[in-house]
Amino acid sequence: MLQYEYHNLLASKQMRSNLPKEKLLECVDQVNNAHHEIMAERNADLLGFYDLPDCSTEHIDKFIANLNPDFDTMLVLGIGGSALGNKALYSALKTEAELPRKLFVYDNVDPVLLYEILAQINLKKTLVNVITKSGTTAETMAGYMIVADIIKHKFPQDFQKRMIITTDKEKGFLRQVINKEGYPGFIVPDNVGGRFSVLSDVGLLSSAFTGIDIKTLLKGAKDMREKCLNPDIGENPAYLNGLIHFLYYRQGKNISVMMPYSNSLYDLADWYRQLWAESLGKRKDIKGRDVFAGQTPVKALGTTDQHSQVQLYTEGPNDKVFTFLTVEHFKHDYTIPNLYPDREEVNYLGGKKLSELLNAERFATEIALSKAMRPNGNIVFPQIDEYHLGQFIMLYEIQTVFTGKLLNINPLDQPGVEAGKIATYALMNKKNYDQVRAEIEQYKIDRGLT
Amino acid sequence: MLQYEYHNLLASKQMRSNLPKEKLLECVDQVNNAHHEIMAERNADLLGFYDLPDCSTEHIDKFIANLNPDFDTMLVLGIGGSALGNKALYSALKTEAELPRKLFVYDNVDPVLLYEILAQINLKKTLVNVITKSGTTAETMAGYMIVADIIKHKFPQDFQKRMIITTDKEKGFLRQVINKEGYPGFIVPDNVGGRFSVLSDVGLLSSAFTGIDIKTLLKGAKDMREKCLNPDIGENPAYLNGLIHFLYYRQGKNISVMMPYSNSLYDLADWYRQLWAESLGKRKDIKGRDVFAGQTPVKALGTTDQHSQVQLYTEGPNDKVFTFLTVEHFKHDYTIPNLYPDREEVNYLGGKKLSELLNAERFATEIALSKAMRPNGNIVFPQIDEYHLGQFIMLYEIQTVFTGKLLNINPLDQPGVEAGKIATYALMNKKNYDQVRAEIEQYKIDRGLT
Repeated sequence: MLQYEYHNLLASKQMRSNLPKEKLLECVDQVNNAHHEIMAERNADLLGFYDLPDCSTEHIDKFIANLNPDFDTMLVLGIGGSALGNKALYSALKTEAELPRKLFVYDNVDPVLLYEILAQINLKKTLVNVITKSGTTAETMAGYMIVADIIKHKFPQDFQKRMIITTDKEKGFLRQVINKEGYPGFIVPDNVGGRFSVLSDVGLLSSAFTGIDIKTLLKGAKDMREKCLNPDIGENPAYLNGLIHFLYYRQGKNISVMMPYSNSLYDLADWYRQLWAESLGKRKDIKGRDVFAGQTPVKALGTTDQHSQVQLYTEGPNDKVFTFLTVEHFKHDYTIPNLYPDREEVNYLGGKKLSELLNAERFATEIALSKAMRPNGNIVFPQIDEYHLGQFIMLYEIQTVFTGKLLNINPLDQPGVEAGKIATYALMNKKNYDQVRAEIEQYKIDRGLT
Repeated sequence: MLQYEYHNLLASKQMRSNLPKEKLLECVDQVNNAHHEIMAERNADLLGFYDLPDCSTEHIDKFIANLNPDFDTMLVLGIGGSALGNKALYSALKTEAELPRKLFVYDNVDPVLLYEILAQINLKKTLVNVITKSGTTAETMAGYMIVADIIKHKFPQDFQKRMIITTDKEKGFLRQVINKEGYPGFIVPDNVGGRFSVLSDVGLLSSAFTGIDIKTLLKGAKDMREKCLNPDIGENPAYLNGLIHFLYYRQGKNISVMMPYSNSLYDLADWYRQLWAESLGKRKDIKGRDVFAGQTPVKALGTTDQHSQVQLYTEGPNDKVFTFLTVEHFKHDYTIPNLYPDREEVNYLGGKKLSELLNAERFATEIALSKAMRPNGNIVFPQIDEYHLGQFIMLYEIQTVFTGKLLNINPLDQPGVEAGKIATYALMNKKNYDQVRAEIEQYKIDRGLT
């Protein structure tokens, strides 16, 4: 199992200003209420992500087994929850699990990024996977139309075998495309929001394609879920870490830093960024009152950001909660040769492994933060593999929903994304947006742009 | 020139809660004092980065011209200020300027990252560039000893021609290595701190190697410097943006988000992260009083993070100042084909360019943030090229030092990095750290680790 080290998140001899344990125990009613709400919503089938580890993956296994073996690359067209989990799993495992197939993700409408991706892949050997729950996401549809057009022209005989679409099982424009044009279709489940969907077809298909063992991934998620069904915070790391973050947030620590000491896990911090920001960043509480809630997630990378952010982290405002991600064993390692045995400046490094230095620096940064009274926790991966990644995903999904309950907000919606979407539609001259267009014209005048 | 759009950073009809212009004008004395301090320090040769655009690059031109043309890749071993600028310039220009040579940067001690880099490069065609001002940075020296050992074994005849070292001009262990082992040496100037050093040999050599036009880069920096020598904030974007960020920070906005709408510029936001965090994140003011200053820089990517962070940005706490980076013209672009002319869900995209959608979404996000009363500025690159990147670098370097003056802290040091370095030395059994080791043993006991 992942180890969750929370010693430095609570008050101790060294860190007197941290949360006292008693403070946590006082929250027992809040914790129980949140737990009961979550269980009730799960029973009402509103929290589908809990049950994804129990779903059959037979349809994915079959699809992958029957795939033309010439395909060695997948190109995902998706954004947000339709991209970040895919990237996180692939980055974590591509070297650690020596994945046999490649993944590219186009999760923007930047033309240069598309150019770079198309220059790197061989379209002949590439399976395109369009992922959007609504089937109308502007960014994804733009990429889809460009790439589908290229594929149809290049492979008029069998273009339907070169693209798959993952979308709502009944609704939406892309489901109609699946039915009319004959692409294989996969499903974004109804009761699973985008940012909670990585263990559904959304993340599993690209993972299975690249060679990730999705059964073990789901097993990890399942084992963590079982652990996190316990309402006792002493036994439930998701609830405990959620409660700790909630209490620090209430104390004014409005920033949550996730700092993996592993380049492979850096994209996992990006997945976390969406989960935490989009779930908890809410103007209204569940009663409709203005609360403007939300802790800002920040990703940092060890050791790299020791030479960029740690000065601020130790000496700047005490406005952050830190979470290290530590890896005990790496698949590849290097011993530092003792090139200058007589030189004290460097000979202490000789004979040590890179991973040893990496983890010593992690521990040194923990000590430095603790000396500066900055609360810091640590999640330890014995190694980077499917089982522990599955655990991590479920841990944070449950923690996020639980923290949303403590904040009295709805962790499942994202009403604040609408305003930008509507303005985009108006600016792109979509039909029926005349009034918004008029407002934007006025905005431009006020802003001095016309 | 870069355009600096600050309309949405100040109070206006739409954004009544923003800083009123009068507030800025009240700071005229503070601004003048800061300006005079900066000018005095520049005259005392303490702010070397101001003068880097005037330095000759002849030694670099000559070195590159005489280089074995077989080299097609550079591997930089460096971290923090010895890596982030190099990466930022390369990422920005590799596609936009169709750079003929490749750059890899190993800026960590993660063994898997090193494995991945070594698997991708052909060492025979790779020039290694070790960059560290002190010549003793643990991370860089670890990488140096591993890579130097490989090169010496693989190319015993001419290994000295396959590595260069950029370090202090006289001091430090690596300067002795240069002198003894015969590697070409380059210089990190005395009076330029790591995070301000990208326009010295530190960033120029790797840039020139990959094919970046460093003269135009410096010309851009010089032109921006001239603009930013003016103490009138109305004419000086570095001072104006610095003052605005300072005042918002004082109002409690402890987060500064830089959000490029361009994947190519994403690494530039990382360069900014170090500059802003390490320069301004300070416990003590210049009189030695505890102030715990510093605004946390956050990087975000448009449009990608609209589906991850913008929910929080528009609805969460109003604790951020935003800076968009906008690109007007991209080197490569795509027209979205109108695959479904009868379908309203997508036909509004047909015939539009990707860059048009990208910039419409940027503008839409600006509108959404403004509606939610979130202060946001915009820096417009007419295109991504050397001239405008040089401007950007100088703009932010001056802005950072100026903001440090307003905060009454020293923007040039980084005392908070020491604690972690010392603990690392102790953990790695470096000589003369026995007392620290004893303290760490006690820490381990208290933390429950032994």
